[in-house]
Amino acid sequence: MAFAGLKKQINKCNQYVTEKMGGAEGTKLDLDFMDMEKKTDVTYELVEELQMKTKEFLQPNPTARAKMAAVKGISKLSGQAKSNTYPQPEGVLGDCMLMYGRKLGDDSMFGNALVEMGEGLKTMADYKYSLDDNIKQNFLEPLHHLQTKDLKEVMHHRKKLQGRRLDFDCKRRRQAKGKGSNVTDDEIKMAEDKFAESLHLAQMGMFNLLENDVEQISQLATFAEGLLDYHIQCTEVLKTLTEALLEKKDEAANRPKMEFVPKTLTELNIDATDGYNGTNDNNFINQHHGSNSNLSGSYQFKRPAPKSAPPPKQNKPDLLPYKPDPLDPWSIQGTYSSFFAFLLTILLTLY
Amino acid sequence: MAFAGLKKQINKCNQYVTEKMGGAEGTKLDLDFMDMEKKTDVTYELVEELQMKTKEFLQPNPTARAKMAAVKGISKLSGQAKSNTYPQPEGVLGDCMLMYGRKLGDDSMFGNALVEMGEGLKTMADYKYSLDDNIKQNFLEPLHHLQTKDLKEVMHHRKKLQGRRLDFDCKRRRQAKGKGSNVTDDEIKMAEDKFAESLHLAQMGMFNLLENDVEQISQLATFAEGLLDYHIQCTEVLKTLTEALLEKKDEAANRPKMEFVPKTLTELNIDATDGYNGTNDNNFINQHHGSNSNLSGSYQFKRPAPKSAPPPKQNKPDLLPYKPDPLDPWSIQGTYSSFFAFLLTILLTLY
Repeated sequence: MAFAGLKKQINKCNQYVTEKMGGAEGTKLDLDFMDMEKKTDVTYELVEELQMKTKEFLQPNPTARAKMAAVKGISKLSGQAKSNTYPQPEGVLGDCMLMYGRKLGDDSMFGNALVEMGEGLKTMADYKYSLDDNIKQNFLEPLHHLQTKDLKEVMHHRKKLQGRRLDFDCKRRRQAKGKGSNVTDDEIKMAEDKFAESLHLAQMGMFNLLENDVEQISQLATFAEGLLDYHIQCTEVLKTLTEALLEKKDEAANRPKMEFVPKTLTELNIDATDGYNGTNDNNFINQHHGSNSNLSGSYQFKRPAPKSAPPPKQNKPDLLPYKPDPLDPWSIQGTYSSFFAFLLTILLTLY
Repeated sequence: MAFAGLKKQINKCNQYVTEKMGGAEGTKLDLDFMDMEKKTDVTYELVEELQMKTKEFLQPNPTARAKMAAVKGISKLSGQAKSNTYPQPEGVLGDCMLMYGRKLGDDSMFGNALVEMGEGLKTMADYKYSLDDNIKQNFLEPLHHLQTKDLKEVMHHRKKLQGRRLDFDCKRRRQAKGKGSNVTDDEIKMAEDKFAESLHLAQMGMFNLLENDVEQISQLATFAEGLLDYHIQCTEVLKTLTEALLEKKDEAANRPKMEFVPKTLTELNIDATDGYNGTNDNNFINQHHGSNSNLSGSYQFKRPAPKSAPPPKQNKPDLLPYKPDPLDPWSIQGTYSSFFAFLLTILLTLY
């Protein structure tokens, strides 16, 4: 049996080479068959490409996709079910706006506008996640099934048909040559039967695949409907958002103009003639007390108070934890230059 | 002058180290000032981040962005104005659908549906390009301007203020210490004046920056409006598309079911008892003529002809250029195995 199998392989190989190099013409199937073959090939490539490009469409950042796949692989290995979500760019931008909007504070109109827009973008990111799930379930999964079940089977039958055709042709050719040929009629009959069987299976498989287009069209329609829903949802969010932002803009444009009087050093109780004791200088406290008791205009920002406005907030000295100041010419430099500065100071103190 | 500059640097450095390590407290500005500083810092970071994240939002594929930037750099160097466009994922998917839809041919309903959807996606990609241009012009450019002009200036004044404050404090501290100090009142007065000047400029700069929020809110609103327009446009395209696809689906579902009769070898005029001459076998021609002249049912596909339908197209033998067949068990293998096959054939022919 093993020898028969090898012989068949040799036959196929022989026939293939004879056809390709010897100019022999193998048995051709008819044009209908060739047309089906062509369409099946197109479908085969299409299904592969569609899956790839749809994933790219849903998650356009290949780096993030690769990262997700890696994390998924690792968490599978380690048995953890760590959720790894694709960073939707609208969500990333929304987070950024939310964070800085909150940092700017409630009293900043721009800050409020940022928070508003950030929330809108986050909602849009949520809709995108739903779209993602929807398309994966209703478009990509059926395509994957088609690829791994029906298409795989059809391709298998076609490959088998090709092999059996070569074997059949080889046997016929060798019998036709006559001289020293030991191919019996039975052998040829057997090869023909196998060829016929594969031809039947390949034809039926391809026909069923190509006839199945109602399902494929319906999947495309589902895809388009999902997209439509997503864009409708986004449109709604953005309508509300745009109105809110335009309102905020008008509000900001119409508020009374601030009179800003920059403070002088004297107003801040900083004076060269002040006693300076080198440590625990109480400028800060002086100044702050001053601004509470001094009635001659210690408030820097004067805006005509709107009716029923809340009383101007008293600035509370908020105790901020020490942070290196990005503007301080020295604090951003490394320890090396600090040390250098320290040395300089010692030198200067001695001098 | 150079020495005076160095001395000032040393003073600042001295003061900085004394404050940080010696526990000395420098002159503090008031809380209003610190609040403005905090908000300016937030704005500074925000403007940087907003630009980055918005670019990411518009063009979420970092690889494509990097490639575009590289091509731009090269074409700038070589003086060419080669257009490099970002590959919108909807356009990429649309191209894929268009290509395979056309390959499937006009007679394939699925092919038509693919072409339809591909065109819709391409239109959406065009809208995305417009959105891209719109946001770049009306949101990113103003932000970039803010960053490189106004913010840069404010940051410069603040840095200068910090330096002058340190210099002033150092001189005061050294004078206060008294022993061996050679700091004159004039020098302190000069340092104070410079400090006051920078304080004024920094306050004005920060105030103007923060007061400018109407403009920033209005830019946010423009961004949201651009997004809204884009989603409305996409919604319209997708509404038409979804309807067309659902129609196509119904049409495909309601068309009369095909009767498929797989052809046998005999129908294809393939028979083991046929004369086989090894080369120029005329099976192909026989079969084709047969299918034209034989009235006993040579058409493989029989669909009850709809009224006023075009006559069934005659299959023309299209002359396809030779392409390696992905299904052929031999053609996909390399030259090495072809050579091996050739050797085998020679052996078999001799045998």
